[in-house]
Order: sequence, then structure tokens, then C-alpha cells
Amino acid sequence: MARDVKQELLTRGVAMLLQHGYHDLGVAALLDATNTPKGSFYHYFKSKEDFGLQVIDLYMKEVHAGLDQCLGDTRLSPLKRVRRFFEISEEKYRTEGYLGCLLGGLGQELSGVSEVFRRKVEQCFSQIGARIAACLKQAVAEGELPKGTDTRRLAKLLVNCWEGAALRSRLLKDSAPLREMLDFYFHAVAA
Amino acid sequence: MARDVKQELLTRGVAMLLQHGYHDLGVAALLDATNTPKGSFYHYFKSKEDFGLQVIDLYMKEVHAGLDQCLGDTRLSPLKRVRRFFEISEEKYRTEGYLGCLLGGLGQELSGVSEVFRRKVEQCFSQIGARIAACLKQAVAEGELPKGTDTRRLAKLLVNCWEGAALRSRLLKDSAPLREMLDFYFHAVAA
Repeated sequence: MARDVKQELLTRGVAMLLQHGYHDLGVAALLDATNTPKGSFYHYFKSKEDFGLQVIDLYMKEVHAGLDQCLGDTRLSPLKRVRRFFEISEEKYRTEGYLGCLLGGLGQELSGVSEVFRRKVEQCFSQIGARIAACLKQAVAEGELPKGTDTRRLAKLLVNCWEGAALRSRLLKDSAPLREMLDFYFHAVAA
Repeated sequence: MARDVKQELLTRGVAMLLQHGYHDLGVAALLDATNTPKGSFYHYFKSKEDFGLQVIDLYMKEVHAGLDQCLGDTRLSPLKRVRRFFEISEEKYRTEGYLGCLLGGLGQELSGVSEVFRRKVEQCFSQIGARIAACLKQAVAEGELPKGTDTRRLAKLLVNCWEGAALRSRLLKDSAPLREMLDFYFHAVAA
């Protein structure tokens, strides 16, 4: 039972942090939204920071599951596997109402004031980049990308450009920036 | 005199909002940092929101000045003018300690909770995109880009990818993501 409440707080935390960001989200509002008794927050979390970090961990679990699903789909070519991951992210953003990416949101809001969050978010991007780079390396091995391609650099670029497109998608409440970015990137790397 | 205090609050506001974001920045901290008597904030601004919007206007004045300087430099080819604008932005980020772009920061933090800021930031990106698109159109006219190039789409893409690179630069406290993004983009559009 205790575990369920914690899980519910974290799950709701992902949605509420996506919408509100960190500083605008009050613990009281989170407890209200989950019908959790006041005072019990600190039973589950050491601090709001601890909560935020655990919400990121939960978010990353989903990201890794998406990466597992797409990058492991050997029916597709390696480049198509990578593109598929971003396409399912686009679908996710759309169904959530175009709130973009939690890592981008918290990274922008908090990295100027919190070394803990700055390092945490950077670490997450770095992990995603490493997994994409591994798949791009496969693309090189299979001749989809030229030999000697700097796959780590190319993976980082993709993650970074995606985050900018995700911000614009959040501002416009529209998928177009995401699709246009993917078209541009995959056209460029295939050239 | 009154005008100077207001200007100082706005100038300091750019720096403090870049560092702290919106919700983490207290009016009291801003007044402290500028040695402004308590209570006078609302003499100059209707609300914190009004202040934030005016800070964005000041930031945009600088952005437009940078665009004037670079896009008007006819000694460079149109594509080089565009690239130069982002290169001076990179220099600016570096001298500020890699805090990235205020529009990206406030856009991420506030667009889920404030329609006013969402529209404002989108309008700013849209203006920057339009100015870059005009210069890319010039690049088409001068044969630097192929006829029929969708210059508005290409300009928006550049602004969006830049914002993602700016976030990563903020996280890493490093220029590399910005330079790598520009290299990738200009290599791709020239291909």
C-alpha cells in the first residue's frame, strides 16, 4: 500500500512537473491532486529535490523502455530504429497535449540554480545519446552510414536538436517542429 | 532618474532570469541586487508578469541589434551572415557563463502555465525566424541555396535546433554543442 502511494505521487509528479515546471509546483498541490494526506510527502521523500530526482528516474524508465522497444526492433534498419524512437516520443507528446520533454523543461529551469539537477539531467541526455550512438554504430557496420562516421557526435546532435524542436512544439502546441527536425536530420545524415 | 532605476531593474532582470528562471526569482532578491528600495517595484511594473514581459522586450532589443549587425553585413555571403549571428550569440553565452538563451529558458518554464508567456516567447522566435528567412531568401537569390528552397521552414529549423543546442550548452557549460550544431546545419543546407 505504502509503495502504491509513492508510485502514484511519482506518476502524477511526471505529469505535473511537465505542466508546471519545478518551482511552480507546490507539494500541497501534488498531495491534493493525489488525495494524499498532508504531511505524508516527507514520509516518502527526503525533500522536494529528492522527489524531483525520483520523478526523473521514473521518466527515464519510460525513455529506456521506448529505446529498448525501438532500438531492439531488428526488422527495421538501424537508422529507422533510431527514427522510430523519436516518432514514438512525438506520439507521446501529442497525447499529453504537447508539453514537450521533462528533461528539457527541468534542465532549462533548474540548471542555473541547482548543480544536482544540472548533473542529473545532463547524465540522462548522455545516457540517451550513448544508446543512440550504439545504434548509429550499427548503421555504420551495416553500410547505412559511411565508415568513419562520428556516431557519438551525431547522436548528441540528434538529441540536442530534438530538444529544441520539443520546446517549439510545446510553444506551438503542434507536432510540426518535431517532424520537420527529424526529416531534416535523417535527410542530412543519409546524404 | 526614475527611468534609470527601471532600466537597471530590467537589465539586472535579464541576467537574473537567465540564471534563476522566473519562479525562483523573487522580487525582493531583484530589489536587493539593485539596491532599490522595497515597495518601489510596483511603481515601475504592474506585476511580476509585466516585469518579465518587459525583460523579454529588452532581451529582444539586443537580439534584433545582433541581427541588424550580422544580417546587414553585406561583405559576407547571406549564409555567412546568418551563421555569424549565431556565432556572436555563442560568444555572448560564453561570456555570460553559458546560461543559454532567455527565450528558451522562459519558454520551457512558463509555457505550460502561462498563455501570456507562451504567446510572447513564440512571437519572439517567430520574429527571429522571419528575419533569418529573409536572409536565406537572399541566399537563394544569390545562388547560395537552390531555387525553390523553403526558406521559412529552414529558418525555423535553425532557430529550433539552436535552442536545443543552447540547452545542452547550459547543461554542459560548454560551447561545443552550439558549434557542432552550426557545423551540421550549414554543412547540410550547403549540400
